[in-house]
Amino acid sequence: MQNATLSIADIAQSLGPQIDAALDARTQLGDGCPTRLREAMRYSLLSPGKRIRPMLVLLAAGACGGEIEPAMPAACAVEMIHAYSLIHDDLPAMDDDDLRRGRATCHKAFDEATAILAGDALLPLAFEILARQIEPPATAVACCAALAHAVGACNMAGGQADDMEGGSGRGDIKGDKETGRQGDKEFAEDTSFLSLSPCLPVSPSPHISALRLLESIHHRKTGALIRVSLRLGAMVVGANAEQLAALDDYGRRLGLAFQITDDLLDVRSTEVEMGKRVGKDARRMKLTFPAILGLDQSTQHARQLVSEACRAVAGFGPQADGLRTLAQYVLERSL
Amino acid sequence: MQNATLSIADIAQSLGPQIDAALDARTQLGDGCPTRLREAMRYSLLSPGKRIRPMLVLLAAGACGGEIEPAMPAACAVEMIHAYSLIHDDLPAMDDDDLRRGRATCHKAFDEATAILAGDALLPLAFEILARQIEPPATAVACCAALAHAVGACNMAGGQADDMEGGSGRGDIKGDKETGRQGDKEFAEDTSFLSLSPCLPVSPSPHISALRLLESIHHRKTGALIRVSLRLGAMVVGANAEQLAALDDYGRRLGLAFQITDDLLDVRSTEVEMGKRVGKDARRMKLTFPAILGLDQSTQHARQLVSEACRAVAGFGPQADGLRTLAQYVLERSL
Repeated sequence: MQNATLSIADIAQSLGPQIDAALDARTQLGDGCPTRLREAMRYSLLSPGKRIRPMLVLLAAGACGGEIEPAMPAACAVEMIHAYSLIHDDLPAMDDDDLRRGRATCHKAFDEATAILAGDALLPLAFEILARQIEPPATAVACCAALAHAVGACNMAGGQADDMEGGSGRGDIKGDKETGRQGDKEFAEDTSFLSLSPCLPVSPSPHISALRLLESIHHRKTGALIRVSLRLGAMVVGANAEQLAALDDYGRRLGLAFQITDDLLDVRSTEVEMGKRVGKDARRMKLTFPAILGLDQSTQHARQLVSEACRAVAGFGPQADGLRTLAQYVLERSL
Repeated sequence: MQNATLSIADIAQSLGPQIDAALDARTQLGDGCPTRLREAMRYSLLSPGKRIRPMLVLLAAGACGGEIEPAMPAACAVEMIHAYSLIHDDLPAMDDDDLRRGRATCHKAFDEATAILAGDALLPLAFEILARQIEPPATAVACCAALAHAVGACNMAGGQADDMEGGSGRGDIKGDKETGRQGDKEFAEDTSFLSLSPCLPVSPSPHISALRLLESIHHRKTGALIRVSLRLGAMVVGANAEQLAALDDYGRRLGLAFQITDDLLDVRSTEVEMGKRVGKDARRMKLTFPAILGLDQSTQHARQLVSEACRAVAGFGPQADGLRTLAQYVLERSL
């Protein structure tokens, strides 16, 4: 992991099979688990994904000088949370998607009740793994607290709730006080772009920029899990406060860049490339980065965030090469 | 709590307001939580319920000689899990109920997406509370592990999945190896009652009795949370292995008695009395205790289980009066 020419393929080849094997081993659920429920959980969890979040756990552990093995339970936990969130987000009452990772979504492959329960079962399994497989107890409990907070009403679930309403629900706007600092600096005083967005579902106000709102949603909906992935990886190898802060800085920027490139891909890609339906954001009149900033400025914003993310982990030296490679990959997948 | 003439009203009056205040305080979710999501979570969590599970946490702590205060976080956590499970069970894709605790179910009062997310947010909040508010870390992490296991695929979620299929999914039948010992002793060799059950959706087999199957479902669907409630209450006050085993014994029997009386109430009560739709089990051809055993034998079975539950906690002396009163209440509510 310390080679400066490390490619994303190297990382995926090195970590991917280990992650998949660990996920497979941890979902061999025995007594009491209905076969169909277990199959639905494994169908979604083990489907071909990029495993970005578990990679972040392991790369963060490596950046702090730790080994992969003690971080693997946390890597599995965050991928379980990610799989649960995709299953529930795809439900008919939510985003109503039928295609995910190139395959039928869980409720299409099984049924809606099974999909709800598969998500409901993956969620506590993540906590059970953290609680049982991380040592010492003080670290395990800190991991449980951090993951629970990242997944809860003030983060992932709240972000999804606001995203469902196209941004109009938006909870407590104070929620974005820590978010998108770079973006805010550039755009906070400039609300001119509001008029460029024909599908903006909120009433523009001098106090609330659409970009701030969108960043607040995504810092919670997708950013919180990305940040906590890095945090868990660092915590299990005993990182210090400075390392945790640097990784959080990296994660905040990477998470936002990831969402921007996801929005760009939704506009630019084909469904075969993405393995899920594309162009839905526009059809749903969803608040997106391209809708607010346009394609070019969105790309530029993502590029800047990735550059800042890489700078945030400069202090780790070559041990953070993997994190830098991953950040570059997030950017390049949309170019 | 040590008065032998303690009534259920005394317990409810003493503990109910404290539990409700603690739940209220822990759901004042701030930054980042959308208002509507918070309202949906609180609507379901704070609706007028019996609070049996948090009472079990507190009564178990008391039976082991502990105070209420250190057990309150765990009491809140189990009620949050209970509320989440009711919200999701009531969804159109699951039991499709419109009435709960005398009010519109969460997805009726709000909408389906909000109800899914309210459940999804209550679940991690329970773990966050355990992780942050229980000391020492070793106890907190043991509580997280125990609750996660009780809620997961091999217990609550698995039991609900099997219950959804009217018992025909049933997972791994080995799952009931620890279950319903008294019931099994009486009925395991006697499959004659299978023919008495016109709505039995499973193929009877000499190896699998319908009663065993039903007990396996309910030990997971409702019993696991009841048992873990007692376990958490005992763990936070430092109970020993013998106390934990006795409480588990009590919980296993109480949980099953609770489900039997719930089935009986579904047959006997009015909707006004129950605050939810009744008679649905029969309409749905669901496997129930009255369907298998008949009303009289079901009542007798519940009575015996409650008597055994009370005997299981005899060793605690008067400190377990509350647990005995609660067990009697569970029985009497259906008579």
